[in-house]
Amino acid sequence: MQVSPFLGELIGTMVLLLLGDGVVANVILKQTKGHNAGWIVITAGWAFAVTMGVFVAKAFGSIDAHLSPAVTIAFAVATDNYSNVVPYITAQMIGAFLGAVLVWLFYQPHFAATDDAATKLAVFATGPAIRHTGSNLTSEIIGTLVLILGLAGITTKSLGEVAVGVGPYLVGVLVWSIGMSLGGTTGYAINPARDLGPRIAHALLPIPGKGSSDWGYAWIPVVGPVIGGTIGGLLIRFFAL
Amino acid sequence: MQVSPFLGELIGTMVLLLLGDGVVANVILKQTKGHNAGWIVITAGWAFAVTMGVFVAKAFGSIDAHLSPAVTIAFAVATDNYSNVVPYITAQMIGAFLGAVLVWLFYQPHFAATDDAATKLAVFATGPAIRHTGSNLTSEIIGTLVLILGLAGITTKSLGEVAVGVGPYLVGVLVWSIGMSLGGTTGYAINPARDLGPRIAHALLPIPGKGSSDWGYAWIPVVGPVIGGTIGGLLIRFFAL
Amino acid sequence: MQVSPFLGELIGTMVLLLLGDGVVANVILKQTKGHNAGWIVITAGWAFAVTMGVFVAKAFGSIDAHLSPAVTIAFAVATDNYSNVVPYITAQMIGAFLGAVLVWLFYQPHFAATDDAATKLAVFATGPAIRHTGSNLTSEIIGTLVLILGLAGITTKSLGEVAVGVGPYLVGVLVWSIGMSLGGTTGYAINPARDLGPRIAHALLPIPGKGSSDWGYAWIPVVGPVIGGTIGGLLIRFFAL
Amino acid sequence: MQVSPFLGELIGTMVLLLLGDGVVANVILKQTKGHNAGWIVITAGWAFAVTMGVFVAKAFGSIDAHLSPAVTIAFAVATDNYSNVVPYITAQMIGAFLGAVLVWLFYQPHFAATDDAATKLAVFATGPAIRHTGSNLTSEIIGTLVLILGLAGITTKSLGEVAVGVGPYLVGVLVWSIGMSLGGTTGYAINPARDLGPRIAHALLPIPGKGSSDWGYAWIPVVGPVIGGTIGGLLIRFFAL
Repeated sequence: MQVSPFLGELIGTMVLLLLGDGVVANVILKQTKGHNAGWIVITAGWAFAVTMGVFVAKAFGSIDAHLSPAVTIAFAVATDNYSNVVPYITAQMIGAFLGAVLVWLFYQPHFAATDDAATKLAVFATGPAIRHTGSNLTSEIIGTLVLILGLAGITTKSLGEVAVGVGPYLVGVLVWSIGMSLGGTTGYAINPARDLGPRIAHALLPIPGKGSSDWGYAWIPVVGPVIGGTIGGLLIRFFAL
Repeated sequence: MQVSPFLGELIGTMVLLLLGDGVVANVILKQTKGHNAGWIVITAGWAFAVTMGVFVAKAFGSIDAHLSPAVTIAFAVATDNYSNVVPYITAQMIGAFLGAVLVWLFYQPHFAATDDAATKLAVFATGPAIRHTGSNLTSEIIGTLVLILGLAGITTKSLGEVAVGVGPYLVGVLVWSIGMSLGGTTGYAINPARDLGPRIAHALLPIPGKGSSDWGYAWIPVVGPVIGGTIGGLLIRFFAL
Repeated sequence: MQVSPFLGELIGTMVLLLLGDGVVANVILKQTKGHNAGWIVITAGWAFAVTMGVFVAKAFGSIDAHLSPAVTIAFAVATDNYSNVVPYITAQMIGAFLGAVLVWLFYQPHFAATDDAATKLAVFATGPAIRHTGSNLTSEIIGTLVLILGLAGITTKSLGEVAVGVGPYLVGVLVWSIGMSLGGTTGYAINPARDLGPRIAHALLPIPGKGSSDWGYAWIPVVGPVIGGTIGGLLIRFFAL
Repeated sequence: MQVSPFLGELIGTMVLLLLGDGVVANVILKQTKGHNAGWIVITAGWAFAVTMGVFVAKAFGSIDAHLSPAVTIAFAVATDNYSNVVPYITAQMIGAFLGAVLVWLFYQPHFAATDDAATKLAVFATGPAIRHTGSNLTSEIIGTLVLILGLAGITTKSLGEVAVGVGPYLVGVLVWSIGMSLGGTTGYAINPARDLGPRIAHALLPIPGKGSSDWGYAWIPVVGPVIGGTIGGLLIRFFAL
C-alpha cells in the first residue's frame, strides 16, 4: 500500500536537503573527513542527493517526485493543470526545512568547530560569488530552464519509457551537469524550496556564532527558479516536448 | 548450479571489505600510487566496492546480497521474518574479517612504510572526526536510515523491476551519496560487519607498529547501524514501501 | 507533436555549448565557485553537456542528435546519404554560437573579474598545449576517430537496442573518456561547431579586455575532426559496423 | 556484416591501450592539459578505456570482447574450451602494441618536453610502488581474481541478461573499482597484454631520452594475471558461477 503523494514529496525533499546540504557541510565545515574535498564532491553530492531523493519520494508514495516548486510549476504550466501546485509546494517547503534541521543535528560538533559565520550560512543557503542582482537572477533563470529542458528530454515520449531505475540516475546526472557548468556564479539553487527552507532553518535554529541569514538575497533563488520553471513549462507546452 | 546464500554473503562481504578497506589503504598509507587521492576516491571506491560485492555475492548464490547486518535486520523487521538473521550475519562477519586480512596481505609493504599507528587502524575501522558519543551515534543511525530508505526506494514495487544490472550500480551510487554527504563525521560505517570484522582483524594480525584498536569506540558503529536498520525496517513495514 | 530536426540540432548544440563552455568558465575564470576545480570537473562537465545536449535535442525533434558536423559527416559517409549534411551543420553552427553567447551572458561578472586575455579565449575555443601543426592536427583526427568508433560501438546492431535512456549517458561517458585520455594535447575539440561557433562569438562579443581569437589555429579543430569523421565513416561503411 | 572476432579483439585492445596509456600520458607527462590531474582521473580514464574498448571490439566483430589474455584464459578454464586462447591472445598482444604506438604518436611533443626517463616508461608499462617480488605478484594475482569474479557476477545467469549497453559500462566500473582500491601497489596491470605490449613498444620506439624498459619486472604483470585468471576460471567452473 502506497502512502500519499504529499508525504512522498515531503520525505523526498527532506532526504534531498539532508544529503545536499550535508555534502556542503562535509566540504566546508572544519574538522570533517571531507573538508576541502572540492567542487567535484559538492556537485556529485548534490547530484546523487537528487537521485536518492527521487527514489525515496517514490517509495513513500510520490508519483512525480518533483522535490522542487520550480519543477512543479513547470509541469503545471506545461499541462495547464494547477491542482498539485499548492500541496506539492507545501510539502516541499516543509521537507526542505526538516532536511536542513537534520543537517544541523548531524554536523553539530562541526558547526561548533567552525568560526566563520558566512561558512555556516553557506551550508544552508546559496549566495552569489559576485553579488549582482541582474546577473545573479539571470543565472538562476537559465540554470532552472536547463533543468526543465533536461527533464523534458529525459522523459520525452518520443524516446519511449526510460529503463526502470535509470531515470532518477539521469536526473542526478542532469543536476551534476548544471552544478559543474552553471553553478559557478550563484551556487545553482535552481529550486526555491532548496534555498528558502534551509534559510528559514538557519534563521530559527540555535547555531552557535551564526550571522545574518542574508535575507536581502533570498528572493533571487526563489524568483529566478520560478521564472525559469515557468519559461520551461511554456516551452514544453508550446513545442509539445 | 548455484552455491549457498551463506557462501554468497560471505564472499560478497569479503570482496566488499577487500575493495573498501583497500581504497582507504591506497589513499592513506605511505608510498602508494593513490596516496592522498582525496575524499572523491575514498567515497567512489567504497561505492563501487558495494556494487561489486553485490555482483560477486549473487554469483556465489546469494539471493539478497545484503552484505551488512543492518540491511539484514532491516529487511527482517520489514517482513517480520527473522530466519536469515543469524546465518547471514555470521557469514557477513566472517567475510568482513577475511576481506580485511586480504587488505593487510595486499598492502603489507605499505603498512611497513607507514609510521603512524592511527593511520594503520583507519585502514580497518572507522573513527570519529570529533569524538562525541551522542553525536557519533546519531550520525551512524541517520546514515544507516538513509541507506535503508534508499534501498527501499531503489527496489520499491511501484517502480517495477529495475533494469537488470542497474540495481547493484544504484546501490553503489546510494553509498557514494551517503559517503560524500554523511561521511564527514564518523566515516559512515553504516554496517556493523564493515567495522567490527576488520577491527578484530586489526587486533589479531601481526601489523608492525600498530597501536590500539580503539575498542572504546567500537560499539558505536555496531549499535548505531542496528538502530538505524531497525527504524528503517519499521518504516518500510508501517508504510508498506 | 514533435518539432523539426533542424530546431532539435540547433537547441541541442546550444545546450551542449552552454554546459560545455560553461564548465570551462567555471573552472578557469576568477572568483567562480568552481575555480581551479581541475581536469576531472572539466571532462565530466563536457561529458554530461553532451548527454544533456542529446536529451534536449531529442525533446525538440532531433532524430539523430549529432550535435557535431564531424558526426553528421561520419554518418553521411557511412550511409552514403548526404541530404542532412547542410541543414544539420547549419543548425549546429548556429546553436554553438548561441550557446557561447549564453555562457558570456551567464558568466559576465567573472569575465570582468578575469584579467588574462588568453583565459577568456579558452572559455570559448580550444588551443594547443604545445603548438605543433602536424601533431595538433593528428590529435584532433585521432580523437574524433575514437569518438566515431565509440558511437558505432554503442549503437551497433549486433548488440541490440541500447536500453532507453542509457544511450545518451554512454555517449557522455565516451566523451569523458576521450577528454581524460586524449584531451591533453589540444583540449579535444573533436567537433568543428564546438570550436568555430564559440570562436566567432568571442570575436564578435564585447568582452572586456579580450585579446586575439587565435584565427591562425582555428582551422585545426575544424579540419582535424572533419578528417577523423570521414575516416570513421569509411570504416563503418567498409566494415559494416 | 560483422568482421572477425580476431579483428575485434585486436582493435578493441588497441582502443583500450590508446585510451588507457593515453590517460597516463595526460596526467604524468609535462605541459599537458591534464598534468597532475590525480588518481581519480587515472582510474576513471582506465575504466572508460575498458568500456569503450569493449564497445569498439563488439562493433568490429568480437563476440566476447575479452581484451585481456587473463580474461581469455579464465573463461577457457571455466568452460574447458581452449580453442580461442591462441588467436585471442595474439590479437590482444598486437592490439596492445599498436595502441601504445598510437599514444606515443599522439603525445610526441609531450614526451619531448618530459625529462624523466622513468616517467616515460610509466606511460607504457606498470611498475611497483615498492619493489617486492612476492608482494607485487600477490597484488597482480588478487587484482586479476577480483576482475574475474566481478565479470562472473556481472554476467551471471541467475541475474538474467544485463540491460543492453549497461554491461560494458559495469565492466568499466569494475576496473575503476579495482584501480582505486587495489591499484596502489603495482598499478593494477591485471592484464598481460596491457603491460607487455606497450613495454615492447617502449623498447622499440625511438622515444627521446628514454631509459630502461625494466625487463626485470616485466614477468610479474604477465604471470600474476595468468595465475589470477586461472584461479578465477577454476572458481567459476567449480562453483558454476
